[in-house]
Amino acid sequence: MKSYIDIDEWRIVESEFKAEYNTISESLCSLGNGHFGQRGCFEEDYSGETLPGNYVAGIYYPDKTRVGWWKNGYPEYFAKVLNGCDWTKLRIQLGSEFVDLHTAKEISSFSRILDMQEGVLYRNSTLTLNNGAIVKIRSERFCSMHNQNLAALNYQLGIENFEGELKIELWVDNDVHNQDANYDEQFWLAKRVHSDSNCGFVQAKTKKTGFHVSTLAHNRVTYNGEPVQATEKQEALKVGHIYTINCSGNSEVTILKKVCIVNDMNEKEESHLDFCRELIHSLDKYELLKKNHIDSWKSHWNEMDIQISGDPKAQQGIRFNIFQLFQTYTGHDHRLNIGPKGFTGEKYGGSTYWDTEAYCLPFYLGTARPEVARNLLIYRYHHLEKAIENAAKLGFSDGAALYPMVTMNGEECHNEWEITFEEIHRNGAIAYAIYDYIRYTGDKKYLVEYGLEVLIAIARFWEQRVNFSKSKNKYVILGVTGPNEYENNVNNNWYTNYMAKWCMEYAMESIAFVKNQDSDALHALFERINFRESEEILKWKDICHKMYFPFDKKNQVFLQQDGFLDKDLSSVDTLSKKDRPINQNWSWDRILRSCFIKQADVLQGLYFFEDEFSEDVIRRNFEFYEPMTVHESSLSPCVHSILASSLGMKDKAYEMYLRTSRLDIDDYNNDTEDGCHITSMAGTWLSVIKGFAGQRSRNGKLAFSPWLPDGWDSLKFNLRYRGKRIHLNIKSDALELKTSDAEGFECYIYNELVSIQENELKSLPLKTNMSNVES
Amino acid sequence: MKSYIDIDEWRIVESEFKAEYNTISESLCSLGNGHFGQRGCFEEDYSGETLPGNYVAGIYYPDKTRVGWWKNGYPEYFAKVLNGCDWTKLRIQLGSEFVDLHTAKEISSFSRILDMQEGVLYRNSTLTLNNGAIVKIRSERFCSMHNQNLAALNYQLGIENFEGELKIELWVDNDVHNQDANYDEQFWLAKRVHSDSNCGFVQAKTKKTGFHVSTLAHNRVTYNGEPVQATEKQEALKVGHIYTINCSGNSEVTILKKVCIVNDMNEKEESHLDFCRELIHSLDKYELLKKNHIDSWKSHWNEMDIQISGDPKAQQGIRFNIFQLFQTYTGHDHRLNIGPKGFTGEKYGGSTYWDTEAYCLPFYLGTARPEVARNLLIYRYHHLEKAIENAAKLGFSDGAALYPMVTMNGEECHNEWEITFEEIHRNGAIAYAIYDYIRYTGDKKYLVEYGLEVLIAIARFWEQRVNFSKSKNKYVILGVTGPNEYENNVNNNWYTNYMAKWCMEYAMESIAFVKNQDSDALHALFERINFRESEEILKWKDICHKMYFPFDKKNQVFLQQDGFLDKDLSSVDTLSKKDRPINQNWSWDRILRSCFIKQADVLQGLYFFEDEFSEDVIRRNFEFYEPMTVHESSLSPCVHSILASSLGMKDKAYEMYLRTSRLDIDDYNNDTEDGCHITSMAGTWLSVIKGFAGQRSRNGKLAFSPWLPDGWDSLKFNLRYRGKRIHLNIKSDALELKTSDAEGFECYIYNELVSIQENELKSLPLKTNMSNVES
Repeated sequence: MKSYIDIDEWRIVESEFKAEYNTISESLCSLGNGHFGQRGCFEEDYSGETLPGNYVAGIYYPDKTRVGWWKNGYPEYFAKVLNGCDWTKLRIQLGSEFVDLHTAKEISSFSRILDMQEGVLYRNSTLTLNNGAIVKIRSERFCSMHNQNLAALNYQLGIENFEGELKIELWVDNDVHNQDANYDEQFWLAKRVHSDSNCGFVQAKTKKTGFHVSTLAHNRVTYNGEPVQATEKQEALKVGHIYTINCSGNSEVTILKKVCIVNDMNEKEESHLDFCRELIHSLDKYELLKKNHIDSWKSHWNEMDIQISGDPKAQQGIRFNIFQLFQTYTGHDHRLNIGPKGFTGEKYGGSTYWDTEAYCLPFYLGTARPEVARNLLIYRYHHLEKAIENAAKLGFSDGAALYPMVTMNGEECHNEWEITFEEIHRNGAIAYAIYDYIRYTGDKKYLVEYGLEVLIAIARFWEQRVNFSKSKNKYVILGVTGPNEYENNVNNNWYTNYMAKWCMEYAMESIAFVKNQDSDALHALFERINFRESEEILKWKDICHKMYFPFDKKNQVFLQQDGFLDKDLSSVDTLSKKDRPINQNWSWDRILRSCFIKQADVLQGLYFFEDEFSEDVIRRNFEFYEPMTVHESSLSPCVHSILASSLGMKDKAYEMYLRTSRLDIDDYNNDTEDGCHITSMAGTWLSVIKGFAGQRSRNGKLAFSPWLPDGWDSLKFNLRYRGKRIHLNIKSDALELKTSDAEGFECYIYNELVSIQENELKSLPLKTNMSNVES
Repeated sequence: MKSYIDIDEWRIVESEFKAEYNTISESLCSLGNGHFGQRGCFEEDYSGETLPGNYVAGIYYPDKTRVGWWKNGYPEYFAKVLNGCDWTKLRIQLGSEFVDLHTAKEISSFSRILDMQEGVLYRNSTLTLNNGAIVKIRSERFCSMHNQNLAALNYQLGIENFEGELKIELWVDNDVHNQDANYDEQFWLAKRVHSDSNCGFVQAKTKKTGFHVSTLAHNRVTYNGEPVQATEKQEALKVGHIYTINCSGNSEVTILKKVCIVNDMNEKEESHLDFCRELIHSLDKYELLKKNHIDSWKSHWNEMDIQISGDPKAQQGIRFNIFQLFQTYTGHDHRLNIGPKGFTGEKYGGSTYWDTEAYCLPFYLGTARPEVARNLLIYRYHHLEKAIENAAKLGFSDGAALYPMVTMNGEECHNEWEITFEEIHRNGAIAYAIYDYIRYTGDKKYLVEYGLEVLIAIARFWEQRVNFSKSKNKYVILGVTGPNEYENNVNNNWYTNYMAKWCMEYAMESIAFVKNQDSDALHALFERINFRESEEILKWKDICHKMYFPFDKKNQVFLQQDGFLDKDLSSVDTLSKKDRPINQNWSWDRILRSCFIKQADVLQGLYFFEDEFSEDVIRRNFEFYEPMTVHESSLSPCVHSILASSLGMKDKAYEMYLRTSRLDIDDYNNDTEDGCHITSMAGTWLSVIKGFAGQRSRNGKLAFSPWLPDGWDSLKFNLRYRGKRIHLNIKSDALELKTSDAEGFECYIYNELVSIQENELKSLPLKTNMSNVES
């Protein structure tokens, strides 16, 4: 854990240069606009440790799989997030010396500031070079939230104590490599390079996938206020503009770069150069571009912000999470999704995990237009065919779908048998998201148009994946990995079995609904997917009726899987410091044999299906499993935090919240250098909204059971719900509600229905002893 | 399955060149002498598909591990069998054309013959080149069984219809690569190259491991009977002799190569050149070297041969297996072992698997001096320290040893978690081999000198590896892979649990024996290994007393593991042809979920510990598991064959025998091109000796319960036992016994004690309905 980032409610501030943490700061200061993004690297040369990263959403490369021992069924490739064109790159040379923070004689002042309110990355540094020159850098850049193709850089250079040749090179550089390429391959092919006196344009094409990505930078350099002319330099995958200046006395150089990034998911490749030129030509002055961008962020913050008074660390943490989530995915395009590192790193590859459905969806439901969450669902709808192919590769038939563990285009990319083939509960999350979306939005039409087809394909998978155990006289699910990946190839994982049954039931319920709503559409669908209604439903009913659920009578808890009680059961607090985290200190077999849980498993199920269990049941299971959970997945603590909130275990809820909210800022897991944990950031939001505020959606209405952590003065936020918005202010002694909707707003507060009129400020007492689980 | 090899009782004959099977023939025609060996590749150029391979026993390279996803505990490297110096290599050029079977205009005759009786590889081919020249090749070569450093090649060339320049290049070529190198690395460093007019010498050093291997070839070339002078050519890792001849009229060329191969496991590297020169200098003529070699094989065959009358295919099969086994390991050197591919290919790497102890040991016990089997045990004794280190890497302590799954020097090399960390039953095989060796030889002193220390370290491992299940009130072993590798990470694998208990019991029994025999030695050992006698033994007793064994009451069979009965139990004959082999047609998860068994598991235990179970128990388990076993490991059918023999199931016994005996000759598994399945060849021997002949060792005497498969006229073989030899001839109606031992021989025949006098031919009736399991 590190704490070199200043506490600031709106900004990520590195106020002193820490070379050893540079790659962490680069991750934290990443910028994005949902369509492209980049790590917070320096523009000029940096010869110390750095991980340059520029990414364009949806653009990937199928890197040939590398394994030790091949298993039948492994995918041939792993879709990698592609490191792409670096448009920020510049080089500054004074005499024979390059400006470089790593080699400079002295750094007399430094700050790198990500302003989250504005979405702008600022830097100020004053260096003394080895040749005695004093160089002041003030830079700012942004990826425009106002225009999805636009980015800009304003780089100011003050030079003192130097006379001689100043050379500035501005590059558009697509000659970049993925650090994690399996075979050290260059993934980009040069397609077109163009330049004129102001502009540099590079079009590159990805190998195999054939995506065309183009970047045009319009450069303007002034020296002491006078424009400077450039000479051009073209290479296969990059283009540069070189400015040579005879420098004497104190000098001020201004570099303005306006950049257009476009790819053939949206524009035909032939027209990229024209598209970029037109955009650049039509642009306002830099200051106006920046203002539009900031205004756009302002209006988003107005929707999404969570205000915590009395705890600046928590305030900074939650805002950082919201900021990163939103700049990763804005919901305009149903072909995009939320990669685990967003635009902050290339690790893991693939853009989509079950994280999207299980953790991220509620964030977008609560904070954005309903189309945004709907686009996440549509994404999976369009992958249905591939999911059916994935299942077929594993021996399933008749339209059964298995959604992939990791994907870009719907095909499976992961290659660990115990995950790829066995962590099949992910399929349930896809179905659950449909349920969750409809429950929140009331958009039942989605079932008719898209949802049901997916639900049936998933139910068909479970139907084939169970088998009947004569010995138990029940249906069982053998050989799975549950959410707790510290168990592999187990039988009857309670969560998976429960999810499988629920999926079949929800599919049947949905069929009944659509039959009632639009029986023509239903029959057209049945015909198209060759659904043998009575036969398949009969089978599903039988399975649901006879599904096996491991249960421990003595402790009256659900068993994570068969045989769990054979383990040496002990609690995490018996582990010594040198054992933690166990995934770095124990061999894999020891982890598997132990009772320790990586990530909420039975509890994940109780969180999803809370309404189906009594508070007693939830509490017993929580008390049984919580002490064995090491939370070595960033997706774990939020679920425990929410359940603890609902059980009135405030200390535990707050402890778990703390583990998620500043995970990256404080680099808890020593891995922020690779990028931030984007999807788990949604978990932080969930801990606050579903945890502290106790938000649920019930009977077509929002419900809250709020409480306030110790030391917080207030917690304020807005939520969208079914076309309306509600504003909550949870104070230490009262809950204030407000809506600006003309029709008013009805919601449950501690299970009591409350009505609010337009602009009425309703104040209710805050309960101090409560739980929101109905008993 | 292929059947292009001619049936011949003593020879492997490829009588027509099959280019498409060339790499298979190369594997089948491999030669070795226990110290080095090579695949049966052509000497001259061959531009078609070929896998050149020359290997020196014990010389390996630690190739950096390659995995998809790293798991804690994986070894850093995988010890690869090293492809080494090719001393057979020659090139023949007539005018501008090279002699090459792949490009020749016509091959008018061809035979490649491995004479197993002689241990010589012969080849005859007559080619017409594209330039019209007719070339007759007659070659023979061998790796001397008489001198462990010697090999020789006699290559005769007849040329017709060609006038012009004939160029012959003879090479000693160490510039070779492993085809399966993880990072395409050259594993050899050039150390020294030397040549004179007759000799070429190359000394190379392995990277990382620093082994020095030297090869000196003495060349003699005559043209129409006249010696030809050479020019020399040296490169970094190879040396050549070039003979240029003006060829006119019909020509006869003779090439004689005598080769000395030496490495620094036996000779210091500085003296290699001298050593080679002296050896070559001292050598007799080629014909005499060949005779000595053949004589040496003859005397070995005299010990080892199994003669089957009436079934030439079976005869060829068993001899091929014996031949390959013995040329892989001759037992002179306790630092060597039996690699799964011997000298026939580079695949898998590592020289030692549990195959050695579980399958190969009895072959060497029965057919070779007792020192040979003892050396196999000593090999593991010397690896004990590494085995303790291996266990420590996985979190075990206090001198607990886990022998590796795959090794060269005692360190673990394998890197699949479900095997490396979990297939721990291998540890039991090491202990069982000590038991088996002592039971056969009566050499109980071995316990005092070496055995007990190993047994204690293994028992300590099991003590730490079990855990007490409060739920079962028993000790359990969680997270293992049994011999049946089509189940991973299972709990309470019956075989593993049984083996663990047996290991602790045998360790206690051995402690008691040594205490009685040499209590000083015992206490010295206890002190050295810090053995807390009363405490540790108390714990072992408790574990043995309360060990859990899964059992199915309904079927009255041992359960392969917990939960086995939840599977969809069906028999192999319900599978369709397109499903088989399932390891090539099913995804890994489907294999794991299925009931199908790769390799004898419970039955392996019943085979090892036959005396502890009634015939009824064995039969019930056999009848339960046999139908579910797909035998997709080459180590599986032999165990089933032996058990079927003992249960009087003759058809099954013979069916299983057939699967093992011609596995490579007929290329059953489509993988002989990579090399032969050396260790499983011992299984064929076991099927005959322990199966058909029903051989056991009981009460310090050999026991037999023979029967003869249908169609066989007789089965004859010798066995060594405790310093004596017995000869058996099983005929269709009688069993003939003979011994040349002056003291005569006593053995059990169908559980009756029988005495034979020196040179007496005792004839007994052959039972037709029998079983040798005592009930």
